[in-house]
Amino acid sequence: MIGGGTGAFIGDTHRKSALSSGQFELIGGIFSSDNSRSLEFARKEGFDLKRCYKNVEELIAGETALSEEERMQLIAVVTPNASHFPIIKELIAHQFHVMCEKPMTLNVDEAKVIEDLVRDNDITFALAHTYTGYPMVRQMRALVEKGLLGEIQRIDAQYYQGWINSIIHGNETRIKGVWRLNPEVAGASCCMGDIGVHAFNLIEYITGLNVQEVLADLNTIREDISLDLDGTVLLRFTEKLKGVIRATQVAGGVENDLNIGIYGSKASLKWSQENPNHLYLLTDNEPARIYKPGNSYNSDLCELGQTMPAGHPEGIYEALANIYKGIAKSIRKEQFAHGEFPTVHDGVRGMQFIHAVIKSNRTNNTWVNIEN
Amino acid sequence: MIGGGTGAFIGDTHRKSALSSGQFELIGGIFSSDNSRSLEFARKEGFDLKRCYKNVEELIAGETALSEEERMQLIAVVTPNASHFPIIKELIAHQFHVMCEKPMTLNVDEAKVIEDLVRDNDITFALAHTYTGYPMVRQMRALVEKGLLGEIQRIDAQYYQGWINSIIHGNETRIKGVWRLNPEVAGASCCMGDIGVHAFNLIEYITGLNVQEVLADLNTIREDISLDLDGTVLLRFTEKLKGVIRATQVAGGVENDLNIGIYGSKASLKWSQENPNHLYLLTDNEPARIYKPGNSYNSDLCELGQTMPAGHPEGIYEALANIYKGIAKSIRKEQFAHGEFPTVHDGVRGMQFIHAVIKSNRTNNTWVNIEN
Amino acid sequence: MIGGGTGAFIGDTHRKSALSSGQFELIGGIFSSDNSRSLEFARKEGFDLKRCYKNVEELIAGETALSEEERMQLIAVVTPNASHFPIIKELIAHQFHVMCEKPMTLNVDEAKVIEDLVRDNDITFALAHTYTGYPMVRQMRALVEKGLLGEIQRIDAQYYQGWINSIIHGNETRIKGVWRLNPEVAGASCCMGDIGVHAFNLIEYITGLNVQEVLADLNTIREDISLDLDGTVLLRFTEKLKGVIRATQVAGGVENDLNIGIYGSKASLKWSQENPNHLYLLTDNEPARIYKPGNSYNSDLCELGQTMPAGHPEGIYEALANIYKGIAKSIRKEQFAHGEFPTVHDGVRGMQFIHAVIKSNRTNNTWVNIEN
Amino acid sequence: MIGGGTGAFIGDTHRKSALSSGQFELIGGIFSSDNSRSLEFARKEGFDLKRCYKNVEELIAGETALSEEERMQLIAVVTPNASHFPIIKELIAHQFHVMCEKPMTLNVDEAKVIEDLVRDNDITFALAHTYTGYPMVRQMRALVEKGLLGEIQRIDAQYYQGWINSIIHGNETRIKGVWRLNPEVAGASCCMGDIGVHAFNLIEYITGLNVQEVLADLNTIREDISLDLDGTVLLRFTEKLKGVIRATQVAGGVENDLNIGIYGSKASLKWSQENPNHLYLLTDNEPARIYKPGNSYNSDLCELGQTMPAGHPEGIYEALANIYKGIAKSIRKEQFAHGEFPTVHDGVRGMQFIHAVIKSNRTNNTWVNIEN
Repeated sequence: MIGGGTGAFIGDTHRKSALSSGQFELIGGIFSSDNSRSLEFARKEGFDLKRCYKNVEELIAGETALSEEERMQLIAVVTPNASHFPIIKELIAHQFHVMCEKPMTLNVDEAKVIEDLVRDNDITFALAHTYTGYPMVRQMRALVEKGLLGEIQRIDAQYYQGWINSIIHGNETRIKGVWRLNPEVAGASCCMGDIGVHAFNLIEYITGLNVQEVLADLNTIREDISLDLDGTVLLRFTEKLKGVIRATQVAGGVENDLNIGIYGSKASLKWSQENPNHLYLLTDNEPARIYKPGNSYNSDLCELGQTMPAGHPEGIYEALANIYKGIAKSIRKEQFAHGEFPTVHDGVRGMQFIHAVIKSNRTNNTWVNIEN
Repeated sequence: MIGGGTGAFIGDTHRKSALSSGQFELIGGIFSSDNSRSLEFARKEGFDLKRCYKNVEELIAGETALSEEERMQLIAVVTPNASHFPIIKELIAHQFHVMCEKPMTLNVDEAKVIEDLVRDNDITFALAHTYTGYPMVRQMRALVEKGLLGEIQRIDAQYYQGWINSIIHGNETRIKGVWRLNPEVAGASCCMGDIGVHAFNLIEYITGLNVQEVLADLNTIREDISLDLDGTVLLRFTEKLKGVIRATQVAGGVENDLNIGIYGSKASLKWSQENPNHLYLLTDNEPARIYKPGNSYNSDLCELGQTMPAGHPEGIYEALANIYKGIAKSIRKEQFAHGEFPTVHDGVRGMQFIHAVIKSNRTNNTWVNIEN
Repeated sequence: MIGGGTGAFIGDTHRKSALSSGQFELIGGIFSSDNSRSLEFARKEGFDLKRCYKNVEELIAGETALSEEERMQLIAVVTPNASHFPIIKELIAHQFHVMCEKPMTLNVDEAKVIEDLVRDNDITFALAHTYTGYPMVRQMRALVEKGLLGEIQRIDAQYYQGWINSIIHGNETRIKGVWRLNPEVAGASCCMGDIGVHAFNLIEYITGLNVQEVLADLNTIREDISLDLDGTVLLRFTEKLKGVIRATQVAGGVENDLNIGIYGSKASLKWSQENPNHLYLLTDNEPARIYKPGNSYNSDLCELGQTMPAGHPEGIYEALANIYKGIAKSIRKEQFAHGEFPTVHDGVRGMQFIHAVIKSNRTNNTWVNIEN
Repeated sequence: MIGGGTGAFIGDTHRKSALSSGQFELIGGIFSSDNSRSLEFARKEGFDLKRCYKNVEELIAGETALSEEERMQLIAVVTPNASHFPIIKELIAHQFHVMCEKPMTLNVDEAKVIEDLVRDNDITFALAHTYTGYPMVRQMRALVEKGLLGEIQRIDAQYYQGWINSIIHGNETRIKGVWRLNPEVAGASCCMGDIGVHAFNLIEYITGLNVQEVLADLNTIREDISLDLDGTVLLRFTEKLKGVIRATQVAGGVENDLNIGIYGSKASLKWSQENPNHLYLLTDNEPARIYKPGNSYNSDLCELGQTMPAGHPEGIYEALANIYKGIAKSIRKEQFAHGEFPTVHDGVRGMQFIHAVIKSNRTNNTWVNIEN
């Protein structure tokens, strides 16, 4: 991994997800441009410090010196936008497989250079359009492909957040401290580059269609901000198929409201990221349907991405992980709050409950004291 | 880990969650009572085969022979119910920390033996009441503790599933094949022991109250089934505080509908497992409130258990993990479906989109072709 | 109408609904036991004062003196519970058709007397189990009748309210002022008689089944209250079909949460009164379905009760009625808030909007000032 | 009323709503351009045939001949769009108060003529922007006015329907039969004129702001259709406040999905017509709030428009009306389905239920047969 050290939410997400895939394990990288902080992070996480490098050149030199078996198999690049291009260019040229955070580069020319390099070096390159990994997003793609919607007549995607409000209505220092608002680091766009492009990617992923033309109206909200924090983009796919992307980072109180609607002559599909396990299919002549993951009616592509039985949101992994965290504290004799994990006493209570229930049922439904 | 080999959903959940906690890594165990299957699983997962044991005695012997540093720190027991007691008794007696699937034992006497052993050996023992690890369940506990509800006047929990329908309305062989329906393996109860007890645990966890008496009415649904698949349990906490637990495994089409309502003189709380990031607080004189994880208004206990920024359901880890799985296939030159991960071409499209948007906005909101 | 004068919500609901049915119009009655208040109400509403009677005897005398054409066709009885029996007994004996608020009487013996009287006098008698008039409740009945659920395996209904909280936690005077808490007026039960019985009626209405036996656990919540405010009732339909009714009036902040679930071997139905236009059908092998009124896939009985095109909640009648109220104030030159009805200026703005939109679209999607 | 005869949904809605307002009663009008059909309708509804006129001239002549007391007080105009202007011009000139369906006229010039006439004749003129009559829409207006949102930063409204799909994908005859698709009757726009303008009106109503400029992209979907069925309109309020209206009639399976979001620097509001009693307020630092009608925390303007206690959707009037319809059939000895109204037998069952419940509770929670 390059980037994603202490305090970086996105780095942490990549690490957890790569582990959870059962396919990758993080073994080293560059976790900060400041080598001492990088080493500190590596130490804390228990990585081999020899594989915690100062810069990309050293990383390439160090890893290529290793046998193919030992060498890092995939490098996740989760640095701020402007550094993506120089880093991934080098990595690809040295034939490392790459997982890159989006946006891939700062401009189209750079992007095309990368595309050529990937082809020429025959490596695997992936971009972190995470939302295309949701089972129900994949199911949407499958349903569209099967033709359930008839002819698509309108496409509508929105990505609304409100997190930047507290920053831009704070003081000037605060505004300057956010790299996403700095064109030199973030590139030509804040809102569209950060989140609008996810909505764009979802549309092309799900429908298999290409946007041909756009007409955009962006808003910086304040005079002293130079990048867009909000905007609407009209889309044209064909003469008779239009759509719209709306994205904003100033929707006060809105968390991460990405949603999409594909409206067809026969049926429509609606999905929302904050409720990712419910996919709605609406038709003229039948009751609306709710598709949920973990069911045999879903496509292979959808079910491939489903790790839980139906009805268990994936948050249950984290719920159980929270309990494991409490256990670890207890084993280490650290302090922990009552309630961090269920104890043997909960086990006794549970057995008392079950047996009192059975006894009450057997004795013609009478009251039974749970502790006797 | 003991149990949880090939095909076991619950073992897989424990492995993923322990990893995700950042505190534990699985290094060995007993993955099947059939040693060859156990070894096969260990081989597939890449565990050290020397630490893949034949039975509990060997495991204890092998691990205690190791230095304290190397020794397994925690053993997760995820075997069928009847084997919990003999296994965990031995483990605790040899001072292993234990994470046990519920129900802890087959009866109350066994449970009390375990409770004594845990105390005497001063080890950490945890029971997998996973739902208490959800951030919003912890927030409920905190809100009740703060007294927001006034005096609690009614408590209501339900746990409805429908998965057993297809089994009990199938043929006799199918019914016999399910260990949960066999009293010798599952214990005195199917529905109440498997899921009712989760509802019971949630109630005591959230309210800090103890159920005093129960009155139960259970239903086996069919003559040829001896354990309960459905039931209602009246609860008495105090003379003037009553409640009810309803649990069923025959609610056709229902997936995993665990929910709870705590009704107080000043306010009420409602939470549902299938929508775990929304906690509703209802009051007489103010608009209802929706608490969500990742927000500063939550209690420490809640936020401790939250790993994502607000608005990102934890399923996003699995979404990104799905993409990593696709990447792994590509690196291994295995076949994969188009759509398993976003490619460099998606990166080029994204850059084209962003730049066409910026250009359109700069040219007084005119149409811009995305590919030029 | 007997009862339902000034300030009575239930009387007002009957009047509006009878009018809205297009079948009845209120022409007189007894609107208060205090004749002067009754007359005052009748005057305000514009009724013929001659048909505003002092008591039931006068009403019967007065109306039977009229020709059959002129005579009141139906008498709605919306008085407190205890008076239902003497009033309706007389009315039926004089062959008036009756619409009676529930509960019909104070006890079973009275109820059977009424049943006999209705049969002997061959009149139409209806009880105000309003919820059976909802289109989707009728659709549930039709779907159960069609056998979509397979064998019913569990039935579950709840009716939760919180309105009585502010009364019982207020002062003693307040408690005494509420007739529902007084056994002499309300009968043997408060919560079960007022709302639990609605849940009971819904169950029998939808499933066509009869409850055979009940086991109840009620709660008065406070020592100084003699009637139940809360309770759970176990139901037995047959040996292998059980259910439960839960009802409470002390669920703080809950408004009118009546819901029902019918769980079958093949599918289940769920409906909630606070969202009455959505009926959920859950099955094991197919996506859940949402039935909504105004669609051709519904049964005749359902669509008979639907007056709006799909997607328009019936609240739209009241929304438009609100605008008519504003118009009336304006015509009467009374004061009204800006915003009570849309004016001609809104009409001009609307036309400007439409024409600016058309012009912008015709001029290659350029900006058009709306006022030019 | 002018227009709105047999089969006209909108005429029926006006009649019911006017009645429900308690302020108006329909007494006559012109119910069809074909006088015999008009008379037939009037006869069916029981109107005075003398006040069922052939045309507007006759209506004006007939009514002005009456005393002011007897004269029609308000005339609802619910004819197709093109006829609005000539009709209302005449009515206003003769000093009738008018309630007009939208769009008010076919173009801006006509609209301004009407505006002048209304002012000069000092009459009450209302436009049927029904959605502004919803209590929670009024509450939104009040919350914005109070400044709860801080500075508004984005405004977003959508109005999606799918009803026209089955027409435009049917045959040519079907397309020609729909007046909304005919520019001579419907005016310059179908989708924007019919529904987009509602979204526009809601925005201006709720925020008190004026749209300054629009940029529109409309879609006729098919070559053989000349009016828009779909479109997106960018809005500019001030330099730094932008918004968007999206409207479509081709969203397959969507019923009447009008919704609006107002996003401010401090908080945001979201409301949806298909769930009209829930208004969401989102803020950065507090749990989201759900405002519902019938609560004391609402503004006067909101509560003025609320006729039900909290928790009862207004559909309950129609539910009870459905029962009255069943009663009417029974009184008239017409055939009716079992289940059209609750009978005396339901009353007996209810009393049996209540008394069995009370008895079970008194006898220490034992089973009680309901029929003994």
